[in-house]
Amino acid sequence: MSGLAEAVGLTDDDVAGVLGSLTARGLTVAAAESLTGGLLTAVLTEIPGSSAVIRGGLVVYATELKHRLAGVDEQLLAARGPVDPQVAAALAEGARRQCGADIGVGLTGVAGPDPQNGVPVGTWYCAVVGPGDRRDLRRGEPTGDSRSQIRSAAVRAAVELLANIAAMDS
Amino acid sequence: MSGLAEAVGLTDDDVAGVLGSLTARGLTVAAAESLTGGLLTAVLTEIPGSSAVIRGGLVVYATELKHRLAGVDEQLLAARGPVDPQVAAALAEGARRQCGADIGVGLTGVAGPDPQNGVPVGTWYCAVVGPGDRRDLRRGEPTGDSRSQIRSAAVRAAVELLANIAAMDS
Repeated sequence: MSGLAEAVGLTDDDVAGVLGSLTARGLTVAAAESLTGGLLTAVLTEIPGSSAVIRGGLVVYATELKHRLAGVDEQLLAARGPVDPQVAAALAEGARRQCGADIGVGLTGVAGPDPQNGVPVGTWYCAVVGPGDRRDLRRGEPTGDSRSQIRSAAVRAAVELLANIAAMDS
Repeated sequence: MSGLAEAVGLTDDDVAGVLGSLTARGLTVAAAESLTGGLLTAVLTEIPGSSAVIRGGLVVYATELKHRLAGVDEQLLAARGPVDPQVAAALAEGARRQCGADIGVGLTGVAGPDPQNGVPVGTWYCAVVGPGDRRDLRRGEPTGDSRSQIRSAAVRAAVELLANIAAMDS
């Protein structure tokens, strides 16, 4: 058995560093994960002391749950499909609101092996909202990576966006 | 980067076998995870085709979210604390209801390094409810295992309980 941070291409020190900085700033985090199915919160909560930062999350694998649990607008989902930057931002907002966190992370994408509604494998969006009005987004493009590699890349992007917040001028 | 199933001491074939059997029976699964922070759903959703079975889940790391997201009775939480077999069953019920699944899994425990409210590190409960009135529970006792080992053992117990359902006489 190896560590989860290592399984996604990070180190425990990477993740612990981000969590330590967020703890020092008194900022809490919640995630709404589709693509990654809980992997981001699993990686974050493997670090001792993570409960000071991680409130919890929503795993919204079924499209219907993106609306039902995270409150993503049904018309937005119908118009744009589940793999969309606006949906990622709405997932982040939903996670923040539903879990009462300062920062919300939304992850949606196509891990494969098959395309989803015409969206190619490897397409993904990671949105972060908060603290306050702060907004950020990373995206992934098709590269031929495996399902595991695609999910790992999205988790690393989320951790990087959280690291940017942790490093903000206060 | 290694596979997630391997990171918890399982193989992809183990997990894919359970998901295949549940798919064949038309049964869906949702989880409410405290101890494991999303690791169970992350392991399950790494398998291609898992969306036929996995609806989603709730990561209820903060005790308040066990009530707020999963609907665990506040008096039960106050009386028994978050690490308790009845709370695990209530988490499983909450996951099943909130995510509209046939089977709910609830995971709660103390991963350490410190005891929680007098409950020693390594104590955990994994409850499964459904399909229908079916109920099952596994528990973990303190053994000196690491945080990662404790969480992995709880995920393996959940997969075993799902395997038992998948193997039921129909």
